[in-house]
Amino acid sequence: MAQASIGDSEFDRDTAVTLRAPGTYDAELSAGWTIIHAVNGGYLLAMLGRALGDALPHADPFTVSAHYLTASAPGPAVIRTELVRAGRTLSTGQASLFQYAEDGTEVERIRVLASYGDLDALTDDVRTTAKPPVIPPIEYCFGPEDGPAPIPGSSAITDRLRLKLDPATCGWAVGAPSGKGEMRGWFGLADGRDADPLSLLLAVDALPPTGFELGLKGWVPTVELTVHVRCRPAPGPLRVSITTRNLAGGFLEEDTEVWDTADRLVAQSRQLARAPRV
Amino acid sequence: MAQASIGDSEFDRDTAVTLRAPGTYDAELSAGWTIIHAVNGGYLLAMLGRALGDALPHADPFTVSAHYLTASAPGPAVIRTELVRAGRTLSTGQASLFQYAEDGTEVERIRVLASYGDLDALTDDVRTTAKPPVIPPIEYCFGPEDGPAPIPGSSAITDRLRLKLDPATCGWAVGAPSGKGEMRGWFGLADGRDADPLSLLLAVDALPPTGFELGLKGWVPTVELTVHVRCRPAPGPLRVSITTRNLAGGFLEEDTEVWDTADRLVAQSRQLARAPRV
Repeated sequence: MAQASIGDSEFDRDTAVTLRAPGTYDAELSAGWTIIHAVNGGYLLAMLGRALGDALPHADPFTVSAHYLTASAPGPAVIRTELVRAGRTLSTGQASLFQYAEDGTEVERIRVLASYGDLDALTDDVRTTAKPPVIPPIEYCFGPEDGPAPIPGSSAITDRLRLKLDPATCGWAVGAPSGKGEMRGWFGLADGRDADPLSLLLAVDALPPTGFELGLKGWVPTVELTVHVRCRPAPGPLRVSITTRNLAGGFLEEDTEVWDTADRLVAQSRQLARAPRV
Repeated sequence: MAQASIGDSEFDRDTAVTLRAPGTYDAELSAGWTIIHAVNGGYLLAMLGRALGDALPHADPFTVSAHYLTASAPGPAVIRTELVRAGRTLSTGQASLFQYAEDGTEVERIRVLASYGDLDALTDDVRTTAKPPVIPPIEYCFGPEDGPAPIPGSSAITDRLRLKLDPATCGWAVGAPSGKGEMRGWFGLADGRDADPLSLLLAVDALPPTGFELGLKGWVPTVELTVHVRCRPAPGPLRVSITTRNLAGGFLEEDTEVWDTADRLVAQSRQLARAPRV
């Protein structure tokens, strides 16, 4: 299989949006990005991000805040965008993704506020104290093909990804979770397409939940997820690290960092999610 | 002076909103919460948070995402809210704060998406690995009254706060910034009012910017700020810790934790801000 490229890949086709009217886009949620019957929240965010990149005067997501309202399902959807403010270096927009109830009425799934800019216009100045996560080389990491369902086998999304988890965060897959709120691994798209700002919106929410390593079973529905894209990622696989420090009152946060092959921190995200009942 | 109480304090009066029509509130931005001519972003967030707490079926902010559009000024404002979704345990709403141009047209200052719930309905289950920041006792920390302008003296907001900074993060005030992106201190309201979920929205954005300790001069305008309120705070002073790890491309993130006297992590926030030009 020839390596796919940015703009001509499974991810690009499955997040495509079609302009129906000014600011309004038709879309089709693919069943290929589902996990335990839910459509992956990062995939949905990438689709909303694509619509906003088309609707706003600036093309690149800088900060995107999404509140998840109701569960999405594979099938048709419509995305309605609004230009909130057009600035010189940043523009702010809003977008909502709707699906259709049986009687044809629109049901809102996700609402997003986002500020967009031009990543290529940023200065090269980097003064960071952040360090990339320490993850063993890819060949020592585990994917779904390597053992007893380290990633829930029923999920279609694993076929779209090259996900290789750090063995240190795979205990849950063999019934021995570490008890630490950590999940780390290498992330790429299965067809070899390199990362871009839109696929970073997927990458921050594509690993198994840290809750698995905390011994929690069941899904961890996102209430709100905010992503900062800090840099256009270099080609090659990404390193993704997720940390949960505060599981309390039935909610938890997931903090995600995404690093590229040039050792740049390309994205940071944090989500508030509901913990599954123990 | 008698100690003020929640509901009857300077903060409550200055963040008051008056229902004008369903979902629409009149407000007055007080000059008392300005810093270097700008109205403090946390103060504005608390006002928006108060309007949403009134407009939504649930009273407590759980996660609030704000995108800052244009600079606010002391004076009249109007807040327009929208109920996005009413759920059993969480409701989602949107709010915008507008002020008036010279010709009377409304100019949007901030737009917010937020999910609200009932903090008192949360379980007592806490499984956290987060540790409170290590800050010297209040009597060893520095406020504006303690020396050569550890907090910019021209700012009115310092009169509203009991802010005592860790000496380790005060180097900037004497021309010797540490070079680390850290700012820590004790936070309270000057009239002794205890913290509540609304004042936490202020607390996450009330310390001097970490940029000062990175040797950056000038203000650090917020692009986007998201706060998670995780617990109703216990009475007494709060400990606030802010960290910046990635100053790159002219932007930086500020990660804030707020801890109460019961050693509970009561709020977490992250903002994306523009770095001042060096």
